[in-house]
Amino acid sequence: MKWKRSERLVDMTAYLLEHPHRLIPLTYFSELYASAKSSISEDLGIVKETFETKGIGLLVTVPGAAGGVKYVPKLHEAETERIVADLIAELSHSDRLLPGGYLFMTDVLGNPEMMNRVGKVFATAYAGHQIDAVMTVATKGIPIAHAIARHLNVPVIVVRRDSKVTEGPTVSINYVSGSARRIQTMVLSKRSMKSGQRVLITDDFMKVGGTMNGMKSLLEEFGCALAGVAVLVEDGAAAKQLREKYLSLVKLCSVDEQQRTIELEPGNYLMEGEF
Amino acid sequence: MKWKRSERLVDMTAYLLEHPHRLIPLTYFSELYASAKSSISEDLGIVKETFETKGIGLLVTVPGAAGGVKYVPKLHEAETERIVADLIAELSHSDRLLPGGYLFMTDVLGNPEMMNRVGKVFATAYAGHQIDAVMTVATKGIPIAHAIARHLNVPVIVVRRDSKVTEGPTVSINYVSGSARRIQTMVLSKRSMKSGQRVLITDDFMKVGGTMNGMKSLLEEFGCALAGVAVLVEDGAAAKQLREKYLSLVKLCSVDEQQRTIELEPGNYLMEGEF
Repeated sequence: MKWKRSERLVDMTAYLLEHPHRLIPLTYFSELYASAKSSISEDLGIVKETFETKGIGLLVTVPGAAGGVKYVPKLHEAETERIVADLIAELSHSDRLLPGGYLFMTDVLGNPEMMNRVGKVFATAYAGHQIDAVMTVATKGIPIAHAIARHLNVPVIVVRRDSKVTEGPTVSINYVSGSARRIQTMVLSKRSMKSGQRVLITDDFMKVGGTMNGMKSLLEEFGCALAGVAVLVEDGAAAKQLREKYLSLVKLCSVDEQQRTIELEPGNYLMEGEF
Repeated sequence: MKWKRSERLVDMTAYLLEHPHRLIPLTYFSELYASAKSSISEDLGIVKETFETKGIGLLVTVPGAAGGVKYVPKLHEAETERIVADLIAELSHSDRLLPGGYLFMTDVLGNPEMMNRVGKVFATAYAGHQIDAVMTVATKGIPIAHAIARHLNVPVIVVRRDSKVTEGPTVSINYVSGSARRIQTMVLSKRSMKSGQRVLITDDFMKVGGTMNGMKSLLEEFGCALAGVAVLVEDGAAAKQLREKYLSLVKLCSVDEQQRTIELEPGNYLMEGEF
């Protein structure tokens, strides 16, 4: 079958978007479309130009025999600002306030489109870093971890509070949960992680960073290194015990249970995201 | 800025793929690209043809003033067969066998690309059904639920084993967990689900269907209806207590702990998926 340029462009775009951070040899496309490499290169030039203009991402070309093309998701800053503004608008409804000053966020975490956007934002920040896996603690961080990992093309590692028979042998650690200074346990299946990996840790909410510190200890236990910390919402009022640099999209400044008001502002991502 | 057809095709493809099951008015594209509606219609014709030929999905056109175009993810059967074969090849390694005859699947559930493919398979089967939400039980079903929900453009509802302060008021039910006939509890935040919805329930593994029956009871409690049951792996040897029709991708036929063998075959999806 002979493909027209217009058809190649549609199919190529779909293929690249489904395979982020993966080097695709030009021969893959030239054989698939029975087209000369020079035509494929021209096609990719058009895709690259459009991806970059529209803030879909970069198309990185690696020359040589082992080369090819790689789609790297990378949003424009304006789109990141829009996502942060959408999150703040969504999360500041007063009916989200729960007893104890907690914020109801379950519906936001259950919105696959929002999670997809959040994942792309963090994948943008860590696009140039070496990340081998994304780790989170069950349950609420899982959609964020999967969204980031999908855009970075790496696996997700889920730490649990308890061990299950379906996990096989596990490693368990104790850590001090931040504000209440309670001793808690974290469990990770031994098969879940190989040593020597660089791991991005993420969660939906961070107060003083106790859970993040727990994940850090687990990484050390497995001989892995911390590659970054990504948080959807941080408590801006809590002093951080976490010494590492982190990125947050939204900062919870204050809640007033009497007046039923929630004050949110952009997290540090917009200032520090392009590190 | 004036857009060329080639650039419009790339950008339109990316936009449609990011917005499945959503009606997009033609004016959206004609204003975005400052192009006549007739040109946009021609572009969409090319996208439609390519999407259908390559098994990416359908492009459904709704005529009239309130009309537009909708991308419906729909895989070709050959691709579904490939995914099922890949899953079977991956899951039949003997080192997945855990004491008690359990199968280690955590890494497969932590593979965002595989989850994306699995999500698209189930979204294909339920493309023509009215689905308002996808429900699962924490923890392992979450990546599957999110992948399906993203391709269907609906929210995810996560049922928990225990209640948490960050969930607000909850509804809790007891159910009989299948094989062991133990009484277990399921908890769902009251805000997580409105009444009158049609809900697809999903999980990573189904033995006799006890957990699925639990979710069914929760749906009744919330005045919602069951719209379907999607399972990654079913235990083929267990007699099902679940009366409803379900779709499974893989069937676990038998495990031999002494010989360390795992026998898997395709689930019922390939026979019944196109219902």
